[in-house]
Amino acid sequence: MTTPAAYSPSRPCPLASVQRFDFETDVAIVGFGTAGTCAAIEAVNAGAKVMLFEVSSGSGGAAALSGGELYIGGGGGTLQQRTAGFEDRTEDFYQYLLMAGGPNADEAKVHLYADHALAHLDWLIAQGVEFKNSYVAERVMEPLTDDCLVWTGSEEAWPFAQAARPAPRGHTVRQEGWSAGKYLMDTLARRARELPIDVRFEARALALIADGNLHVHGLVVRIDNEPRFVRARSGVVLCTGGFIMNREMVRRHAPTLLRADHPIGTVDDGTGVRLGMSVGGAAINMTEGFVTVPWYPPGSLVKGIFVNERGQRFINEDCYHGRVSQFILDQPGDRVWLLQDHETYAPGLLHETARVGIGAAGDTWAEVEQELKLPAGTLTATVEVYNRHAAQGDDPLFHKARKWLKPLDKPPFVALDCRVDHAQYSAFTLGGLDTLPTGEVLTEGREVIPGLYAAGRTACGLPRWGKGYSSGMSIADSTFFGRQAGLAAASKG
Amino acid sequence: MTTPAAYSPSRPCPLASVQRFDFETDVAIVGFGTAGTCAAIEAVNAGAKVMLFEVSSGSGGAAALSGGELYIGGGGGTLQQRTAGFEDRTEDFYQYLLMAGGPNADEAKVHLYADHALAHLDWLIAQGVEFKNSYVAERVMEPLTDDCLVWTGSEEAWPFAQAARPAPRGHTVRQEGWSAGKYLMDTLARRARELPIDVRFEARALALIADGNLHVHGLVVRIDNEPRFVRARSGVVLCTGGFIMNREMVRRHAPTLLRADHPIGTVDDGTGVRLGMSVGGAAINMTEGFVTVPWYPPGSLVKGIFVNERGQRFINEDCYHGRVSQFILDQPGDRVWLLQDHETYAPGLLHETARVGIGAAGDTWAEVEQELKLPAGTLTATVEVYNRHAAQGDDPLFHKARKWLKPLDKPPFVALDCRVDHAQYSAFTLGGLDTLPTGEVLTEGREVIPGLYAAGRTACGLPRWGKGYSSGMSIADSTFFGRQAGLAAASKG
Repeated sequence: MTTPAAYSPSRPCPLASVQRFDFETDVAIVGFGTAGTCAAIEAVNAGAKVMLFEVSSGSGGAAALSGGELYIGGGGGTLQQRTAGFEDRTEDFYQYLLMAGGPNADEAKVHLYADHALAHLDWLIAQGVEFKNSYVAERVMEPLTDDCLVWTGSEEAWPFAQAARPAPRGHTVRQEGWSAGKYLMDTLARRARELPIDVRFEARALALIADGNLHVHGLVVRIDNEPRFVRARSGVVLCTGGFIMNREMVRRHAPTLLRADHPIGTVDDGTGVRLGMSVGGAAINMTEGFVTVPWYPPGSLVKGIFVNERGQRFINEDCYHGRVSQFILDQPGDRVWLLQDHETYAPGLLHETARVGIGAAGDTWAEVEQELKLPAGTLTATVEVYNRHAAQGDDPLFHKARKWLKPLDKPPFVALDCRVDHAQYSAFTLGGLDTLPTGEVLTEGREVIPGLYAAGRTACGLPRWGKGYSSGMSIADSTFFGRQAGLAAASKG
Repeated sequence: MTTPAAYSPSRPCPLASVQRFDFETDVAIVGFGTAGTCAAIEAVNAGAKVMLFEVSSGSGGAAALSGGELYIGGGGGTLQQRTAGFEDRTEDFYQYLLMAGGPNADEAKVHLYADHALAHLDWLIAQGVEFKNSYVAERVMEPLTDDCLVWTGSEEAWPFAQAARPAPRGHTVRQEGWSAGKYLMDTLARRARELPIDVRFEARALALIADGNLHVHGLVVRIDNEPRFVRARSGVVLCTGGFIMNREMVRRHAPTLLRADHPIGTVDDGTGVRLGMSVGGAAINMTEGFVTVPWYPPGSLVKGIFVNERGQRFINEDCYHGRVSQFILDQPGDRVWLLQDHETYAPGLLHETARVGIGAAGDTWAEVEQELKLPAGTLTATVEVYNRHAAQGDDPLFHKARKWLKPLDKPPFVALDCRVDHAQYSAFTLGGLDTLPTGEVLTEGREVIPGLYAAGRTACGLPRWGKGYSSGMSIADSTFFGRQAGLAAASKG
């Protein structure tokens, strides 16, 4: 057996070819984002020797770019939920997460998380992460104040509200301004640096080290431009994020996401997914992603209606912005508009950040229809049917909730231009390695691959369906299941 | 190193654990369907020693259940195309195949096939497969006579016709009745049995045999309930079909296909895909499948329009039935109807085989709308807009070709009930292993896995996008790229 001339994350390095190990540890973690950090904290607290390898020169990951929300509920409600008057039963939380996971939801993960989300919040607080006891009732993307509880999903919208009693579940860390995620990540990273975790920056994972049975025994990392061989007696935990920045992987697995011009990620080059696949790990839900154009706030815009280039409505507009955006992507052609009247229209995020302008305006919907060059009788028929039923407080076609219904009959009327190929659509990937709730990586036959774990967006976790994504699901998943992976790996020592 | 207690197609058997080989060959082929047969014929003709393992007790595969069509064109046209008056330039053939491959089309495979399709037809004829020189102009699923050339795709429909000059390209083998595919398969199998190919029936592939570098050296097969070890000096060629019969794999990778209650397959349990993944092979386009309800002939039905449960149209109805069916699956809810008037309606396959009945009827479209319990002004507005433009020979919303346009204004009117969860929808999978045109299996990093090849639906080939599938693409792909894999493997001897 010979050592491959060049390493590739898609091909394992044979154990028998390793001359000597440069490092020996119990648990080797790849990636210093939220998942890797939580895995490291739990593994070291469980008594394991832990090394953490990060390709960048500091901690980070996509969560650090986020609004710092975690999707938490069940157990009767968090302090914030109860204070705001929401009881949140575990059963409702479970049902919502299950629906949000889509047709291939992971029942075992949903079940475990629904049962332990409250305790997970306590754990985060114990690591030093602060959450204010406050609630923002308005429809926002994320609070720009230091407030905590917000609505971040489609809980009150059809069909979710019919299956699970709604409650706000987005718990935002106590930090003002955009990107409270950085505060969350920094706090967790600070905690990790207080513990005896051997962190190596600028260390790129090159390949897993596996024996002939494809049991994983460590990994090859590049440090100072040299391959270094790491023996991980208990396990390797892959936490390198998703693959949105690897455009070739996106093209191959989730080409629709290429239309979103604003990928959300730091490294996210698919290294972890590829490492897992190299030893027979199954990658699942690889076409799925989170995609969004921030089309609200203000909430009044929810009273408008979206139409495609055939003048047809296609969604109840009171869904979460990401779910609406997924339906936008499904429409034939590129042209999509958000119709508003004089009472509902207000400038907002669409203008500030999303490059969305006014596509047409008019004193009648027929004028708007004409200006958009839609065939006569298309958009006008759509608005006419909508208005007639909205006046009765009903939306028989798409089931938008009554509180958002009003006839769009106060001129002037506008059509906001939400073209995917023009406006700013953000995206990250939701597909990844199939894992048990313990983080153990599975083959296509669902056999465990000994010595290999994954968490965060390297794995396919709670969030795995673009049409069900809700803000805070990814960080809830990465922190909670990062912890499980760290604990499980440490227990093999 | 120890031998695993039980074999799994998702885990390789370590070469070092093999005590002795029961068989030695140059090329080991798994699966006696069209792909495996063509691979075997070419490999043995190239001078290789060939073994062919088939889990069933006879040759077959999904192609044997088919109509026996091959999608062939380019080079100025086949004899049948030219006789029928169609010149088919390679460039048009290439463009159509590329569009049909969807957003992740394989340019290299499309290019190779477009250049060599005519020679491939000659090769099939040389193996004994007969094709009549005749053309059926009517819109059919497949000829029930022994005729050859038919339209089997969306060549004349928007947007395909705008990108590539249309020509009929479905070449049906000379055989009367349904399932001419059996004649095709039997003819190829007969040819293979005349050659010195060592065929073993009732032999199930259990695992690949790989060394520490994951180079493939053979496979473990179960014969007479015992694991047998096969050394393949030049390569293993996986031709076990797709995975539509493995409902757990379908649920995990392509859950939408579960809605189609009529899976088309024989074994098709995903063994080949799993074997490839077990040594780091990348499976791509795994969500994609061919799904169809045979809603024509007669062709007059194409003059009707499909509406979803919001009363909206969603497709130009002159597309290939499989493309239309994919759009049906995309619609929200389950209820979909095909609207016809007195002039266009005629009973056909829908009634005979697809469990499609009349959902509503009326003397006005308003009556039909009401009977279907659609909100007032939905279906009627759709028909009104359609009729107005159809009278002008135009379909500005969906671009149905002029020859299929006529106002649906002759009562009585009917709505044919095409519910996915009620009617008969057939399906097979289009996702599979990423391969080079040679059949060499690739990792996620697109490195070749030495010693491993795949073809037919085990690989991701020309057909890889449900909305682009055209009848004959799968067998064209399995026979042509089966040949390439056999040749490539033999050349490594």
